[in-house]
Amino acid sequence: MSQQAYEALSPETLAARIGAIEAIRNRIGDPAAWTVREVGDGNLNLVFIVDGPDGSVVVKQALPYVRLVGDSWPLPLKRAFFEYNALIRQAERDPGSVPEVFHFDEEQAIVVMEFLAPHVILRKVLIEGGRVEGLAEMLGRFCARTLFRGSDLAMPTARRKADAAMFLGNVELCDITENLVFSDPYFEAEMNHHTPALDPVVKLLREDIDLKIASQHMKAAFATNAETMLHGDLHSGSVMVTETETKVIDPEFATYGPMGFDVGMLIANFLHAYLSQPGHAETPGARDAYQEWILGVVADLWAAFEDEFSRLWRSERTGILYQASLFEDQGHARGAEQARLERLAAIWRDTLGFCGIEMHRRILSLAHNADFEKIEDEATRARLEARALMMGRTLAVARGEITSMAQVLDLARATNKEDYL
Amino acid sequence: MSQQAYEALSPETLAARIGAIEAIRNRIGDPAAWTVREVGDGNLNLVFIVDGPDGSVVVKQALPYVRLVGDSWPLPLKRAFFEYNALIRQAERDPGSVPEVFHFDEEQAIVVMEFLAPHVILRKVLIEGGRVEGLAEMLGRFCARTLFRGSDLAMPTARRKADAAMFLGNVELCDITENLVFSDPYFEAEMNHHTPALDPVVKLLREDIDLKIASQHMKAAFATNAETMLHGDLHSGSVMVTETETKVIDPEFATYGPMGFDVGMLIANFLHAYLSQPGHAETPGARDAYQEWILGVVADLWAAFEDEFSRLWRSERTGILYQASLFEDQGHARGAEQARLERLAAIWRDTLGFCGIEMHRRILSLAHNADFEKIEDEATRARLEARALMMGRTLAVARGEITSMAQVLDLARATNKEDYL
Repeated sequence: MSQQAYEALSPETLAARIGAIEAIRNRIGDPAAWTVREVGDGNLNLVFIVDGPDGSVVVKQALPYVRLVGDSWPLPLKRAFFEYNALIRQAERDPGSVPEVFHFDEEQAIVVMEFLAPHVILRKVLIEGGRVEGLAEMLGRFCARTLFRGSDLAMPTARRKADAAMFLGNVELCDITENLVFSDPYFEAEMNHHTPALDPVVKLLREDIDLKIASQHMKAAFATNAETMLHGDLHSGSVMVTETETKVIDPEFATYGPMGFDVGMLIANFLHAYLSQPGHAETPGARDAYQEWILGVVADLWAAFEDEFSRLWRSERTGILYQASLFEDQGHARGAEQARLERLAAIWRDTLGFCGIEMHRRILSLAHNADFEKIEDEATRARLEARALMMGRTLAVARGEITSMAQVLDLARATNKEDYL
Repeated sequence: MSQQAYEALSPETLAARIGAIEAIRNRIGDPAAWTVREVGDGNLNLVFIVDGPDGSVVVKQALPYVRLVGDSWPLPLKRAFFEYNALIRQAERDPGSVPEVFHFDEEQAIVVMEFLAPHVILRKVLIEGGRVEGLAEMLGRFCARTLFRGSDLAMPTARRKADAAMFLGNVELCDITENLVFSDPYFEAEMNHHTPALDPVVKLLREDIDLKIASQHMKAAFATNAETMLHGDLHSGSVMVTETETKVIDPEFATYGPMGFDVGMLIANFLHAYLSQPGHAETPGARDAYQEWILGVVADLWAAFEDEFSRLWRSERTGILYQASLFEDQGHARGAEQARLERLAAIWRDTLGFCGIEMHRRILSLAHNADFEKIEDEATRARLEARALMMGRTLAVARGEITSMAQVLDLARATNKEDYL
């Protein structure tokens, strides 16, 4: 199959085109008996579920354009290459955290991987008020393991540099992040849209010089601080869950960047879930306890990240940075601990900055969050979105002054009672 | 010539091997009349001056090992590729600042370039107490232009990312910097050596946890903050001067890194020149005025950097960061100015940090500075080196608290009177 030029799959052609691949055939059985459903509901790609007599797989294929927008917005197929490379690295760094990859075809931009069932997208669960056991712990650990182990804290630096060089090729997807996340929210960019009633708050933000500077400092950090391999798009739509299991999917935006990016984006999406709850409450107040559960997830997620990062710092710090030869080997373990606290403080500041910006772009830029979009009453939606925008502003601008997660949660609770319109 | 395998040049073989190349022949005339001198006095490479009937060129060839150490320390030939690529970028970003390249042969690791005459190495001039008109201004401008124009502030980001990926291949030379500059000074590394009388101060530094953490924060910034293409080895031995002209040479350590690295290394080497002067004074006090001239160079260098960086910020900010669409185009030029000050403050902090570390490694690690090495009286040398070590400590650790160049110069003047042994 890799001999022929790229061609998009369809449910009709899929079995004929990939049925001969042993790794798939051995797993799900005779292609003659396959049924194929197209399920792609993401923004970019084709996704199929293939059910065979012995099991199921997911087949994901990049399109040469953005699926959400159409062929007026071309996007290179090589993003499948980056997704594949990110998936196998994540599997190595945090075993069991991502779908297992069974087959990759670079020419056809196809990744065939484990079908997660009965998992559903976390964002949907959060909108419906569902809970997931171990969610915070898994996500915090995933971030710590993938971010630590992909950095100069742990990896041989020649390999880290080669990986960083490779992922620098993911230019077009970085370009999406650089524009849509960090700049578009703060001026009237072409693809922007927002709930009209938000206009006064949007005007306020776009006149806020400190906020715009913060967005650009964070953009500079994203674009140039190549600390580690990021997932690059780690929001609640990139997480699949059951009541007791959590998996991370869709790392096609993978790039080398600062550790706080993934963690900050995750927390932003939980804060959107939190602040949007009143729009989904069956009766007023019906989601109050659930909102507190979400804040608990945020707190536990950061705590799990910090714990696992600290454990790895003490046990796997084998890279070129903060070497044991300078600290532990000289009887200065205390120095290594101080350095750990200082690194965590830097990650914390970045996390808050990225979190604040992400809270803006998901309301003002092209790709919005269903957490708010699914609120049909426009006045309610605007009222809740305004809260998220104002909270994002504080986090982004005051990222250097907020010193604990308790402060962030208190800010969320206070914001949840404000009316900015 | 590029057909054959790599072979080191010699004065005897040089004309036969590169005489046929038109770009050289046209410039200096018939190879039959060439005279060839080997002059390499650097640490790594072969360097020849070739005089022909119509002019002269420099021929620089990488060796597959470190010249200073011998073939027990292999070093890849590809460093000539990075030097060539850095030279042509520097020439484009600050025309006239570096020797013109006439020919590059990747296979043979040869760069043929302009012979600078009557230029001499700046370090030699500083040891002898000589002055150079326009030195500070040229170097400050060189840093501003090469660093700004190679960054996401100015370059199309796809090109910047491709360049960053390419220079990530310069792994072995980065490895030298990462070890020799940032870590070796702070423990008993194999290749270290220092003036024995320094022992008590060295002990003090190696027990200084805050200093060691600072060195590692700066190392992390060097290794991962891929802001711009650095020269990578910008000390007074990489600068050639006449009484009125300044040129920068030898960028084989080029890599993408933080802007403060080049500026900080330069300033460190000027501070070494300053603090070592009493060891070269013909009579006590004879170099006092000259010392003040050097501090003037440091002050003017930073001022020139800041001026030119600011000019470029206002006139060439065409990259993805701090875009005009967010500031000037919205009537918020004031925001762009505030952002400029914040970026300069970050570069300033980095500059001080890198400066402090460089002041250590040139006394404690493998490659020392002639400024101190040429002081024959060991007690004098140790006394002056101790000052440089102590000043470096303050700059590295207090880099976030020192807010003006005047404070740095005052610290230098005070240090110049201290006795730490």
